[in-house]
Amino acid sequence: MGESPGESPSVGGEVSRLLEQAKELQDAASSLISRTSAEEDALRQRVASLDSHINSLRSSLRGSKNYDKLEEELTRARYILSEGDAAAFLPSKSHGRFLRTFLGPINVRANRKDVQLKVKEEYNNFRDRTAYLFLCLPSLLLILRTWIWDGCLPALPVQLYQAWLLYLYTGLALRENILRVNGSDIRPWWIKHHYCAMAMALISLTWEIERGPDCAQKQRGVQLFLKWAIMQGVAMLLQNRYQRQRLYTRIALGKARRMDVVWGETAGVEGQLLLLCPILFILQGFEAYVGVLLLKTALARFSSDWQVITCGILLIIMAVGNFANTVQTLMTKSRVKAKIKRGKSRQELNQGSDGKSL
Amino acid sequence: MGESPGESPSVGGEVSRLLEQAKELQDAASSLISRTSAEEDALRQRVASLDSHINSLRSSLRGSKNYDKLEEELTRARYILSEGDAAAFLPSKSHGRFLRTFLGPINVRANRKDVQLKVKEEYNNFRDRTAYLFLCLPSLLLILRTWIWDGCLPALPVQLYQAWLLYLYTGLALRENILRVNGSDIRPWWIKHHYCAMAMALISLTWEIERGPDCAQKQRGVQLFLKWAIMQGVAMLLQNRYQRQRLYTRIALGKARRMDVVWGETAGVEGQLLLLCPILFILQGFEAYVGVLLLKTALARFSSDWQVITCGILLIIMAVGNFANTVQTLMTKSRVKAKIKRGKSRQELNQGSDGKSL
Repeated sequence: MGESPGESPSVGGEVSRLLEQAKELQDAASSLISRTSAEEDALRQRVASLDSHINSLRSSLRGSKNYDKLEEELTRARYILSEGDAAAFLPSKSHGRFLRTFLGPINVRANRKDVQLKVKEEYNNFRDRTAYLFLCLPSLLLILRTWIWDGCLPALPVQLYQAWLLYLYTGLALRENILRVNGSDIRPWWIKHHYCAMAMALISLTWEIERGPDCAQKQRGVQLFLKWAIMQGVAMLLQNRYQRQRLYTRIALGKARRMDVVWGETAGVEGQLLLLCPILFILQGFEAYVGVLLLKTALARFSSDWQVITCGILLIIMAVGNFANTVQTLMTKSRVKAKIKRGKSRQELNQGSDGKSL
Repeated sequence: MGESPGESPSVGGEVSRLLEQAKELQDAASSLISRTSAEEDALRQRVASLDSHINSLRSSLRGSKNYDKLEEELTRARYILSEGDAAAFLPSKSHGRFLRTFLGPINVRANRKDVQLKVKEEYNNFRDRTAYLFLCLPSLLLILRTWIWDGCLPALPVQLYQAWLLYLYTGLALRENILRVNGSDIRPWWIKHHYCAMAMALISLTWEIERGPDCAQKQRGVQLFLKWAIMQGVAMLLQNRYQRQRLYTRIALGKARRMDVVWGETAGVEGQLLLLCPILFILQGFEAYVGVLLLKTALARFSSDWQVITCGILLIIMAVGNFANTVQTLMTKSRVKAKIKRGKSRQELNQGSDGKSL
């Protein structure tokens, strides 16, 4: 049999059996992968065609008398596609330049809705954890400056903090891009805002922390930067509370009846929003004010660092963008609310007339 | 039928039909996802059990007379599992702290072998593109320093270069971690090496670029850093050529007979390796030398920056680690080669005796 003398046949047989099994598993895996991808492709085509159907029908709806009711049904159909398991087969949003630059062409889209929600949940946890640090670290630096460092910040702790900021904003930008690919409706501006913040953290690292007798004057730019960071921490904490409550509402409603989430999404967080908005506006005003102060500082010193000027301009851009986007979000929300109210009153009206027609 | 007067029934019918289709697609997607994940789980269990069987049998093989032949068959079985389509169902390597810190809990593993090879190919392209910049940018800075800047580097161009370095090493570290998750056998040290380089780029950003009359003296640390970067560029270009040829050999052999790749992997690149190794050793020596020079510079100036000292220490660590890992790689390669030779000569011997026995 070609077996050398002295070999234990049982071990030899076991080895060939395992080799055989490996080949079988290879075939099974290969057929499962090709079968699955064929089925997925077919489903992907059906989903894409239904999606484009819905969109084309929606544009031809205008002018029809039952517009509101039909529009609502179409929205519901679209919602089933985009929030259910079929969402995994919708055409994928492009991964975007940022993700491709850092990660290459790898796919970061999760197929299952519960995994996507887990990613979102973890993102919120990450924001929570960092928001406290965001608040504490610059406060600590400013307190130590007065108590221990005699009004003069040493370079190393500030630079460590700035390096942490750079990591933090890079992490946030990466995670938000991943969320976007996974179907989150995050506004593009908030991601761009984090690109600006990344640039600011990077620039602040090259910022010379001057020492010497009149350092309190020379370090004015850094101090303003730290104060802005504290304010940013407050804003993050408040936003986190709001976003988290919204997600919980979504998940809770989703469990009850997943596809109806859109109608109840804002329920229970209205009051929070009333508190959040004025604070956000104040913070945005403060952000612009710090930006202007930085520019003034740079101009007053004549031999000004480019870092101070660039950071000032970036802060003003961020403040304006944040303001515009907060206002737009509020307007969208109030429009949705009006629609729901209108729908409800019409429903009541219909029920009334139905009652009469009986 | 509850339809208000004046509604176009055809549009209404179309809308309800689409809504119905959306519900159907939702059900189809849901059942496909659950069916697929059940089948995948089953396959995953079979693959895991076979994998552990192979491992336990391998350890009980020792002492059996046909050890070499059985060992070869087991390696082949293991290879079928780890390089074929079944590899997608092997227990996933942990994503590692680095990826989790930057990306959160998202899955970056590609299921299909061709996608994994594409990721590797793109990684090589990325390295190629950056290697040229790696060589050109610091050279340009040093040339401009002599020709235009009168021996005194200005801060901004150097800092822009350092920011690019930071991005580059972060990108490389992220991509290499992703490759590792996708089954690449990249040595952990090379990833750690890029963590060290990230730290160095970050530290160098906080490095004050001093100006003034005796800046040539004071900028000695920065100049050494730039020279090291040029050397690093040369090393990257050479390594890229070698790695790329290895991958092409793998793909070409894989097309011919995928599972036999491991036996021919080193074919055709032996000569390249003979050229590459001495150059790598010289570069590693230079890396350590620059590290020592940095330390000397820092000590000679008495009021030394912590950045110069830390970068010096990091460079020495990287040089020692690189050297140790290059030597280990060479030893593994020569062991594999010896094994293949041994296998071949035994095969010839066997063929000879077979011939006689006929």
